[in-house]
Amino acid sequence: MGLKAHAMVLEKFNQPLVCKEFEISDIPRGSILVEILSAGVCGSDVHMFRGEDPRVPLPIILGHEGAGRVVEVNGEKRDLNGELLKPGDLIVWNRGITCGECYWCKVSKEPYLCPNRMVYGINRGCSEYPHLRGCYSSHIVLDPETDVLKVSEKDDLDVLAMAMCSGATAYHAFDEYPESFAGKTVVIQGAGPLGLFGVVIARSLGAEKVVVIAGSPNRLKLAEEIGADLTFNRRETSAEERRKAIMDITHGRGADFVLEATGDSRALLEGAELLRRGGFYAVAGVAVPQDPVPFKVYEWLVLKSATFKGIWVSDTSHFVKTVSITSRNYQLLSKLITHRLPLKEANRALELMESREALKVILYPEG
Amino acid sequence: MGLKAHAMVLEKFNQPLVCKEFEISDIPRGSILVEILSAGVCGSDVHMFRGEDPRVPLPIILGHEGAGRVVEVNGEKRDLNGELLKPGDLIVWNRGITCGECYWCKVSKEPYLCPNRMVYGINRGCSEYPHLRGCYSSHIVLDPETDVLKVSEKDDLDVLAMAMCSGATAYHAFDEYPESFAGKTVVIQGAGPLGLFGVVIARSLGAEKVVVIAGSPNRLKLAEEIGADLTFNRRETSAEERRKAIMDITHGRGADFVLEATGDSRALLEGAELLRRGGFYAVAGVAVPQDPVPFKVYEWLVLKSATFKGIWVSDTSHFVKTVSITSRNYQLLSKLITHRLPLKEANRALELMESREALKVILYPEG
Amino acid sequence: MGLKAHAMVLEKFNQPLVCKEFEISDIPRGSILVEILSAGVCGSDVHMFRGEDPRVPLPIILGHEGAGRVVEVNGEKRDLNGELLKPGDLIVWNRGITCGECYWCKVSKEPYLCPNRMVYGINRGCSEYPHLRGCYSSHIVLDPETDVLKVSEKDDLDVLAMAMCSGATAYHAFDEYPESFAGKTVVIQGAGPLGLFGVVIARSLGAEKVVVIAGSPNRLKLAEEIGADLTFNRRETSAEERRKAIMDITHGRGADFVLEATGDSRALLEGAELLRRGGFYAVAGVAVPQDPVPFKVYEWLVLKSATFKGIWVSDTSHFVKTVSITSRNYQLLSKLITHRLPLKEANRALELMESREALKVILYPEG
Amino acid sequence: MGLKAHAMVLEKFNQPLVCKEFEISDIPRGSILVEILSAGVCGSDVHMFRGEDPRVPLPIILGHEGAGRVVEVNGEKRDLNGELLKPGDLIVWNRGITCGECYWCKVSKEPYLCPNRMVYGINRGCSEYPHLRGCYSSHIVLDPETDVLKVSEKDDLDVLAMAMCSGATAYHAFDEYPESFAGKTVVIQGAGPLGLFGVVIARSLGAEKVVVIAGSPNRLKLAEEIGADLTFNRRETSAEERRKAIMDITHGRGADFVLEATGDSRALLEGAELLRRGGFYAVAGVAVPQDPVPFKVYEWLVLKSATFKGIWVSDTSHFVKTVSITSRNYQLLSKLITHRLPLKEANRALELMESREALKVILYPEG
Ligand SMILES: [Zn+2]
Ligand SMILES: [Zn+2]
Ligand SMILES: [Zn+2]
Ligand SMILES: [Zn+2]
Ligand SMILES: [Zn+2]
Ligand SMILES: [Zn+2]
Ligand SMILES: [Zn+2]
Ligand SMILES: [Zn+2]
Repeated sequence: MGLKAHAMVLEKFNQPLVCKEFEISDIPRGSILVEILSAGVCGSDVHMFRGEDPRVPLPIILGHEGAGRVVEVNGEKRDLNGELLKPGDLIVWNRGITCGECYWCKVSKEPYLCPNRMVYGINRGCSEYPHLRGCYSSHIVLDPETDVLKVSEKDDLDVLAMAMCSGATAYHAFDEYPESFAGKTVVIQGAGPLGLFGVVIARSLGAEKVVVIAGSPNRLKLAEEIGADLTFNRRETSAEERRKAIMDITHGRGADFVLEATGDSRALLEGAELLRRGGFYAVAGVAVPQDPVPFKVYEWLVLKSATFKGIWVSDTSHFVKTVSITSRNYQLLSKLITHRLPLKEANRALELMESREALKVILYPEG
Repeated sequence: MGLKAHAMVLEKFNQPLVCKEFEISDIPRGSILVEILSAGVCGSDVHMFRGEDPRVPLPIILGHEGAGRVVEVNGEKRDLNGELLKPGDLIVWNRGITCGECYWCKVSKEPYLCPNRMVYGINRGCSEYPHLRGCYSSHIVLDPETDVLKVSEKDDLDVLAMAMCSGATAYHAFDEYPESFAGKTVVIQGAGPLGLFGVVIARSLGAEKVVVIAGSPNRLKLAEEIGADLTFNRRETSAEERRKAIMDITHGRGADFVLEATGDSRALLEGAELLRRGGFYAVAGVAVPQDPVPFKVYEWLVLKSATFKGIWVSDTSHFVKTVSITSRNYQLLSKLITHRLPLKEANRALELMESREALKVILYPEG
Repeated sequence: MGLKAHAMVLEKFNQPLVCKEFEISDIPRGSILVEILSAGVCGSDVHMFRGEDPRVPLPIILGHEGAGRVVEVNGEKRDLNGELLKPGDLIVWNRGITCGECYWCKVSKEPYLCPNRMVYGINRGCSEYPHLRGCYSSHIVLDPETDVLKVSEKDDLDVLAMAMCSGATAYHAFDEYPESFAGKTVVIQGAGPLGLFGVVIARSLGAEKVVVIAGSPNRLKLAEEIGADLTFNRRETSAEERRKAIMDITHGRGADFVLEATGDSRALLEGAELLRRGGFYAVAGVAVPQDPVPFKVYEWLVLKSATFKGIWVSDTSHFVKTVSITSRNYQLLSKLITHRLPLKEANRALELMESREALKVILYPEG
Repeated sequence: MGLKAHAMVLEKFNQPLVCKEFEISDIPRGSILVEILSAGVCGSDVHMFRGEDPRVPLPIILGHEGAGRVVEVNGEKRDLNGELLKPGDLIVWNRGITCGECYWCKVSKEPYLCPNRMVYGINRGCSEYPHLRGCYSSHIVLDPETDVLKVSEKDDLDVLAMAMCSGATAYHAFDEYPESFAGKTVVIQGAGPLGLFGVVIARSLGAEKVVVIAGSPNRLKLAEEIGADLTFNRRETSAEERRKAIMDITHGRGADFVLEATGDSRALLEGAELLRRGGFYAVAGVAVPQDPVPFKVYEWLVLKSATFKGIWVSDTSHFVKTVSITSRNYQLLSKLITHRLPLKEANRALELMESREALKVILYPEG
C-alpha cells in the first residue's frame, strides 16, 4: 500500500487550519484505514479551534463526527454485529475509545466515564504516525479497539456523521430515564443539534408531548417540522408565560422530563421550575465550567422528589441505538444540515458554526 | 333523575343474550352514570359466554371495553388528571378496580395482581342495584373508585374502547422490558388484537424491527399495514425457516423481545428458540389453564440468561399510557375494527368473534 | 363503648402543650381505635410547635410516630398482609394517608407525592370528632384508609415508633438507588435520627464502607457503634481533609452514594465534591425552604454524570421495608433513644429535642 | 527470569491428573505470572474430568478458582481500582476474559454472555506456551486482559478462591433482582456452594427471611449456621408440607425470590409453586442440558406475573461485588471449606467432590 491523504490541520489555536498531505504506507496491526465520505462540524470544534478545550494537543486534525468507506483492514476486524470488515464497506464508528479495564469500563459499566477515553479529533494529535486521527481529512486510521458498525448504500452518511456526537449524547440523556416515555411530556431547552436530535428521539420513544424552548425563530420552526408539538421563543415570551403554558398542557403538574441542551448553566433556573413532582432533569448541554447557579435545594429537589442527572458524552451502547433511531428518521434529520461544503472550506465551516449562521455543516473531502 | 337503560344480559351460559330494561333512579354516592357510546367485544367475552371463565356470575351484562359520555355524577369526582367530571364529558376508564389496601396495591405496587380486583363486565353481575356493570348496555354505573380519563370530541372512541383491554395488556408487556426498544428486534406471536396492538406499541416505543408470526393471511397483511417489517404465516413456513430468517436479520443473535399473543402455551416452544442470549420473553396471551409444555431449562433459560415474564391484565398506569399511544395512532388502529354493529346484535358479534371472522367488533348502543 | 382519652394539645404556637381529655363514644365506620404505647418526638415537631410549618392547623395533637394496641375496630379491617385486625393486636401504621386516585397514587406510583396526603399529627387538627389524630395521646383513631402492620410482643415498639418517620424516609433514600449496595461506599452527612438510620440501612443492604460526617462527638461515636466504618467531626476536620480521606478509601474515585441528612442545603457544597463520577446523591434532610446554594452544573452534575435525587417523606412500601430492617436491628437502633418520658412531659421532650440534648425522645402515655 | 512450575494436568478424560513440570522463561507482554496460594475445586471440575463438558481441550490444567501472589508483571498492569500490580501483591481475578468488542460486551453490557469468553482452567489447554492457564498449579500466567483485584494479608484467600465461581454466580442471581431485598422472603433450592453463598448474600443484602431446601442434613445445618432462618430436608418433608410452611411465613403469598441452586431442572416444578404472584425465580444451578420439564405457562408464569430469569456464570462487575460481600463474611463462609489438601492430592479432591463427601476442597500448591 501507499496512499497520499490530505487533511485540514490545526497547528496553532486561532490560526486557520491548513491543508497538509500525509503519506500512509502501512497501518498498524489491527487498524482500519477509512476514506472519509462525510465529516460533521461540531459546535465544540469551534471551542477547540479557539484553544478553549484543554484536552486538545497540537497539531491536530479536528473532526469527531464522520462516516466513510473502508480502504484497508490490517488483519481481521469485526463490527459490533460480528460482521467482518472488508475494503469497500461503508461504516460509522464510536468516536471514543475506552480502556476496557478501569472501574467504569468493567465494574460500573459506564464506559463514557472512562478516565482513559480517547476521542478522534479531540485528544489525539497528528504528529505521530499514522497521523490520521480526525475527520477533517480525506482518510482516518481507526485503532483496533474502535467500535464500528457497517451501514449500507441506502443509509444517509451525512446524517449519520452528524448523529455520532450530538445524536448519541441526546440519546444517552433519554436512555437514562428509567421509564417509558409513553404518556410523558418532554421539554427541551435549546434547539441546536443536541436539542433537535432530542425532539426526534423523544418522538421515536413514544413521548406524548414535546415542547422546545429556544431563541432562534428558524430553529424553532425546524423543531416543529421535525416533531415538536409546541415551541417557545425565549426572547419573545417570559419564563412565567412558558411555565404557565406547560402547566396548562400537563394538568398543572409540569414536565415529566426536561432536557437541558443549551450549554448554559442558567437554563436550570427555568427548567427546574418546569419539572413536575417526581420529574427528571437530564442536563446534557453544559460542556464547560461556568459560574455556579443559585440552586433551590428544597423547592427544586426535595419537595419535588426530582432527579437531576448529568449527561456526559456517550458510549458504544448509545452509539448503536442512535444509529437505529437515526436510520428511521433520515428525512427529518437531514433538515438539520444547513450547509454542505468541501473539506477545503473547513475554516469557513468553523466560522459559520461560530456565528450560529449554520446549524450543522457537513464537509466532503471529495467535494 | 329517572332513566330507562337497556342492556344485553347473559342469563344462562350458552344461551343468547337477551335485551333487558333497567330503571335507574338514583345512583350510589360518588358513582358516575355513563352513556355507553362504544363497546368492544373481546375474545374473552366468548369464553365467558360459553361458561369457561369461572369468575363470571349470572346474570351479567358482559363488556369490559367501553367509552362513553357522563350523564350524571353523584358528588364530586375527578379524573386521573385531577379534572372534575361533569355531565357531557367524554370518558374512558380502567375496566378493573383494585382494593388499594393489599400487599400488591400498596407494597409491591403491582395493583394488577390485587386479589380483590373487580372488573366491569367480568366478575360483577347485574342482579343488584344499580345493575349496570357491563358495557353491552346503553349505560354503565361506575363506582367511585373507578379510574377515569376525560377525552375529547377529537378522540376516536371506538379505538379507545378497543384499547382498554388488549391495548393496555399489550402495553403492560412492553412496559416490563427494562430497557429502551431503540435498536431492538421485536417478534410478536399472534395477530389478534393483542398482537396487533403490540405492533403499534413496539413501533411507537422505537423498536428497530418488528416481526409478526401468525396463521391468518389477512391479519398478517394488516400487521404489515400498521407497521410490521416482516411477517410469517405459520401455516406456510416451518419453524426452522422462521428461526433462520430471524437469525439473519439479527446478525445471528435472535430477537431481543418476544411477545406471546397467541393464547396457546405451545407458542413458547418456538418463541424460546427465537430469543437471543439475554433476551426477554413477555408471555401475555395465555389466559386459561392448558397442558404443560416441555421446557428446556438449560437451553432456553440458563444458557441464554433469558427472562420469561408473565403478563397478567393491566393497571391504571398502563391504561393511561395506552390511551396516550393509542391517541397518536387512531388511523392505524382503526383498521383492527372489522365490524361495527348495533348493540342489539351482540349475539351475532359473539359469533363473529368465535368464528374468528371478526378481528374486533364494536357495538353501538345507539345503533 | 365509652372511653376517656387524654392528649397533649397544641392550642397556640409557642405555648406549652396542655393536657386535655376527650370523650370517645363511637368511632366512624371502618376506623380503628388504638391505645398508644409509644410515641416518638420528631425534630420536625419542634418546628410545628414553633409555628414554622404551614401545614399545621390549631388546635392539634402532635406526634406522627407511634405504635400501639388495637382497642376496637368498627367493622372489618385487614393489615397489609391481609391479617384481620382485632382488639389486643399490637400495630404500627404508615403516618400518611394518600388519596388513591391522583396521578401520583395511580399513574406514576409515587404516592409519597400525593397532593392530598394527610398525616396524623401534622396536618389534621383535633377540633372535630373523633379528635384523636396525633400520637401525643393515650389513644388515636385511625381512618379506614390507614395502612397498618401487625407486630408482636417480641417487637420493640419504641424503636418501631421512631422508625416510622426518619427510618422510613432514610429507607426511601436508599431505595431510590438503582443498584445493589454491594461493594459501594456510602457517605452520610448528619448524625441525627435520619443519618443514623441511614447507617443501619446501608449496612443492612450490603454497603462495603459507611462514612459519617457530623458535628457532635457523641453522635459520631454512636454512629460507629451501630456500624459506621469511618466518621468525621466536621468541626475538627476541614472539608478538604475529609475529601482526601474519602478519596483514599475509594481508590481516588469518591463515594458511590451520598445521603444528605443534615437539614442544611449547604451540605451539598461538600457532598457534591465527595461523589464519584457516576455517583448518586440522595438529598433527604432539607425539609424547609432555605437560601439557594451556588451549584456547579458542569463540575458536579455533567462532568460527573452524577444523579441528584430529592427524597420527600415516604410511602407504605417504604414503611413495610423499614419495619423489616428495623426488626432485625432493635439492639443497635435502641441506642438512638436517649430519653424516655411520660406523655405528660411532652413539653420537656420538645425542649430536649430543640436543644439537641436529646437525639430521640420516646413518650409513654401510660408512664 | 527462569522458573520451574508444576501443575496437575488432565491428559485424558477419566484418567488421573498427572503432575507435570513446566519451564517458564519469559511471559508474554502484559502478562502476569502468579504464584497460586489457594485453588478451589469446583463441582464442575468433576464434569470436566469425566469428559462431560464439551468446552474442555486436552491436555489441560483444571482449576478456575484461585488466589495468589504476583511473581512478575511483564509491563505495566493495573487492577480494577487502578492500582499498579507489582511482585508480592496478593490478588484474585475474574476467571473469565471477554472480548470487549462484541454485541454483549459493548452494546447490551452483558459480558458474561460474550461468545468469545475464555475461562482459565476450563477452555484453555496447556499445550501452548506459557502453558499455565489453570489453578491446579504452582503458578498461573494471566493474560493482560484479565481483570484483577489486589487483596491484602488480612483477607482469607481460601474463601476468596472459592468465591470466584459459585460466589460470583450466586451474586449475579441476586443482582438481577430489580428491587431491594428488604422485607423479602428468599427461598434457596440446594445447599451446595452456590446455594450456601446464596444464603450469605441474601442476608447481606437485607432479605427478611431466608429458607433453604436441600437433601443433606449436614448442609442444612450449615445453612442455618450461616444465616438461614428455616430449612427443609427434601427427603424428610413433602413438597406440599414445604409449600404450606412457606405460605404460612409469607401470609399466604409465597416467596418473593427463589434461587435454583440444585443443578436439576426438576427443581422448577417445586420452585414455581413457591413463588408469590409477582415473584422472581433465578435459575442458576442448571449447568448442563437435561430433559425438558413440564411447564405450566398459565399457572406459573402468566397468572402469577412471575419472572423466570436464567443466570449464566458472572462478569467482572459481579466478581468485584462478590469480593466485597465475601470479605465481610470470611468467618461464616470458611465453614463451607470441608477439606484442605496439597495440590498433589488433586485426584483425591475430585473424588471427594464427586462423592459429595466434600462440600468444597481447597488445594494448596505449597502443601
Ligand atoms: Zn476505562
Ligand atoms: Zn461534537
Ligand atoms: Zn378483554
Ligand atoms: Zn389490592
Ligand atoms: Zn393521591
Ligand atoms: Zn418526623
Ligand atoms: Zn466453578
Ligand atoms: Zn465479547
